[in-house]
Amino acid sequence: MFEKVALIGIGLIGSSIARAIKEKNLADHIAISTRSQKTLDRAKELGLGDSYNIDPTEVVRDADLVIICAPVGAYEAIGKQIAPHLKTGAILSDVGSVKEHVVKALEPHVPDGVHFIPGHPIAGTENSGPEAGFASLFDGKWCILTPIEGTDQDALHRLRDLWVAFGSDVEILDAKHHDMVLAITSHVPHLIAYNIVGTADHLESVTKSEVIKFSAGGFRDFTRIAASDPEMWRDVFLTNREAVMEMLGRFSEDLSMLQRAVRFGDGEMLEELFTRTRNIRRSIIDAGQETDVPDFGRHVSAVEDESGA
Amino acid sequence: MFEKVALIGIGLIGSSIARAIKEKNLADHIAISTRSQKTLDRAKELGLGDSYNIDPTEVVRDADLVIICAPVGAYEAIGKQIAPHLKTGAILSDVGSVKEHVVKALEPHVPDGVHFIPGHPIAGTENSGPEAGFASLFDGKWCILTPIEGTDQDALHRLRDLWVAFGSDVEILDAKHHDMVLAITSHVPHLIAYNIVGTADHLESVTKSEVIKFSAGGFRDFTRIAASDPEMWRDVFLTNREAVMEMLGRFSEDLSMLQRAVRFGDGEMLEELFTRTRNIRRSIIDAGQETDVPDFGRHVSAVEDESGA
Ligand SMILES: NC(=O)c1ccc[n+]([C@@H]2O[C@H](COP(=O)([O-])OP(=O)(O)OC[C@H]3O[C@@H](n4cnc5c(N)ncnc54)[C@H](OP(=O)(O)O)[C@@H]3O)[C@@H](O)[C@H]2O)c1
Ligand SMILES: NC(=O)c1ccc[n+]([C@@H]2O[C@H](COP(=O)([O-])OP(=O)(O)OC[C@H]3O[C@@H](n4cnc5c(N)ncnc54)[C@H](OP(=O)(O)O)[C@@H]3O)[C@@H](O)[C@H]2O)c1
Repeated sequence: MFEKVALIGIGLIGSSIARAIKEKNLADHIAISTRSQKTLDRAKELGLGDSYNIDPTEVVRDADLVIICAPVGAYEAIGKQIAPHLKTGAILSDVGSVKEHVVKALEPHVPDGVHFIPGHPIAGTENSGPEAGFASLFDGKWCILTPIEGTDQDALHRLRDLWVAFGSDVEILDAKHHDMVLAITSHVPHLIAYNIVGTADHLESVTKSEVIKFSAGGFRDFTRIAASDPEMWRDVFLTNREAVMEMLGRFSEDLSMLQRAVRFGDGEMLEELFTRTRNIRRSIIDAGQETDVPDFGRHVSAVEDESGA
Repeated sequence: MFEKVALIGIGLIGSSIARAIKEKNLADHIAISTRSQKTLDRAKELGLGDSYNIDPTEVVRDADLVIICAPVGAYEAIGKQIAPHLKTGAILSDVGSVKEHVVKALEPHVPDGVHFIPGHPIAGTENSGPEAGFASLFDGKWCILTPIEGTDQDALHRLRDLWVAFGSDVEILDAKHHDMVLAITSHVPHLIAYNIVGTADHLESVTKSEVIKFSAGGFRDFTRIAASDPEMWRDVFLTNREAVMEMLGRFSEDLSMLQRAVRFGDGEMLEELFTRTRNIRRSIIDAGQETDVPDFGRHVSAVEDESGA
């Protein structure tokens, strides 16, 4: 499918792409670069690629596809550095969780003849680093591409086909709209998960060991989300500020209403909301974006554990 | 262990208790009552008990252990109704998610010679009804008992031993403190999960189908929590108002700080919080309250699904 794919950044997402490409034989050569020698060595030990270089300008040379898989705050510097070394006709893409900022940070540096097509797979786990990835991460998940005006259709199709080969469904969205959708489906949920875990961490009336001990009542599931990579998420909030602020404003307004309902004992309002939210989950399961396996009891995981899987 | 156990309410928790008692042979007879004939018939079809009666006064007759497994808002009426029919020496317990209110609602009705010991298993799933239960739900989970002053130690030990037989670790807490701990580890997390799902449901800038489609970025995990039983959760918020309001106040204060950090681009503050919250998750895994299986990608569930489990 591609001759040489260059990956810059080889954490959860980069290493999952490398594994998926290898497993499905979608490129002749995978070249890997990352920030630290330590991670580069680890990637080599794991056999994720065919060549490794700490210098990104070296790995992009002759690559017909370059995918930036680093936190979005690092994009501008990476873009500036690699731009002069990109091959004419190459596709430059990425996987960043924010898209308008990525266009602003990269587009000015992209040389003529290079096809710049931003992307974002809606798939992930709370783990990070090169060990965390797996080839099936994108299988059955959506990948959003946010091509800019005048994007070469051939290049777009080639990139789309790669994600389809990973098992993803591909959706084309405007970058600004992407950022709004992700603010509510991902960024604000992460922010409030981080927030409640932070709140629980510095209470005086309840000890930390009690929080940990009795976390199975719901809190645990927030800590899972709040265990995601700090650097990646810092960059998401720094670069999608406007949409996050807007959605957070809506969330806070609604929370004030709910707080009033609790204060004044408005059981009807509470039950109405709790019934409505139940239906949304049903829709998500019906849309194939979730399994129906009950998970609070974690008995599925437990069974897996016991069987040694 | 017991001669006759009476269960009033046979949803997720009640039916899990019935299944655990049967599986481990912990009582000679399980008598079941619930609000609706429909659920009672379903419990019978599922073979959850040995006798069934819509009238709770009938099932508690001669029972040496009665466990109320209904939403806490129904407790007072149930307590009044069954009290005159409780056997001397019997233990009256429950599983309600709130404890101070339960003591207030039940204690005045408990006849002399009956041992009233409130309880709360910290285990559950987002599903409800008699089909949702399973015998291993309490295995490896905590169960909190909140005995009132002067509780008979023999009775307390008998009840504790039952939960231990279910596989639970038992902790004794003061009812008021229980409500504070659960407000932060369970009630407020549920409230904010319900809230964000509600917010997403009535946006104009992002369609409901987009929210559903791209829910795998984090939102999905909130819908799981926000799919819990509306009646049960309504009652929790109506009966643990004070502690919920206090913890919600703390949450909102912290969220305002976080909002400022986003607005002013304070990356250091964000990264510091995101790093701190990561450590709490580590502690929860170390405490055995969570498995280390990455779950956002839901590949564990997917594997289970494929194997037909
Ligand atoms: N995690 C998710 O759920 C998810 C989902 C969709 C998209 N994304 C996006 O995917 C991207 C990567 O996230 P991830 O989850 O894979 O993070 P990760 O596991 O933390 O990996 C990040 C990788 O980027 C490298 N890196 C950091 N700064 C760099 C720089 N200046 N130059 C080159 N490499 C650099 C890191 O290198 P060192 O280890 O060498 O420092 C590491 O290999 C982010 O933009 C994120 O927004 C994440
Ligand atoms: N779900 C959890 O995660 C969880 C965890 C720990 C503790 N709890 C506590 O466990 C209790 C039960 O919750 P659940 O999850 O098992 O709920 P559920 O699955 O919705 O079941 C509730 C049961 O209570 C019955 N019921 C309702 N009102 C009643 C009344 N007035 N008299 C007799 N029975 C009545 C229902 O009967 P019908 O179907 O006949 O109407 C149903 O059988 C609640 O107090 C809850 O706070 C829940």
